[in-house]
Amino acid sequence: MPGYSARPPAMATTLVDDQLTRVIRWDFEPGAATGHHTHGMDYVVVPLTDCHFLIEDESGERRVQVAAGESYRREAGISHNVINGGTSPMSFIEIEYK
Amino acid sequence: MPGYSARPPAMATTLVDDQLTRVIRWDFEPGAATGHHTHGMDYVVVPLTDCHFLIEDESGERRVQVAAGESYRREAGISHNVINGGTSPMSFIEIEYK
Repeated sequence: MPGYSARPPAMATTLVDDQLTRVIRWDFEPGAATGHHTHGMDYVVVPLTDCHFLIEDESGERRVQVAAGESYRREAGISHNVINGGTSPMSFIEIEYK
Repeated sequence: MPGYSARPPAMATTLVDDQLTRVIRWDFEPGAATGHHTHGMDYVVVPLTDCHFLIEDESGERRVQVAAGESYRREAGISHNVINGGTSPMSFIEIEYK
């Protein structure tokens, strides 16, 4: 399709997966995306780099900037696609609560 | 006391504290220490920087190097003093499971 360019996939690396928790490292080149997904567990995100998030969800598209280390918690049930909307690689750790 | 030098305290900043979890950011100048403590909860550590840990516990003293992002999980009950044994500031996020 002329002008069409698929987003590259973000890379997921599982660091811990046991009875208590799953810990995944996510690495995004500029423009990379997780793909649309729904969180089945409560989770915390720890940004390893400054993150320029481009979020796609049912309400549309929005940009959110989070500095390295600015960790936050979210509830199960969130559905979205998470994209590196910046011009540098970005990485974060996702901690899921089983 | 001649030659005596107290370790400066590591700085703890609570980022999340709710029914599910507590998330604390720890920042250490070179030589800074948490002070001896026993973990009451299972926990995960997410290094924000390369960390040159100097660990003091009942078995003595040891050095452990962990790269930024190399997250790991530990069980409740661990007792130790955690010191920045390197020459640069170090920071990590501690996630506790309630």
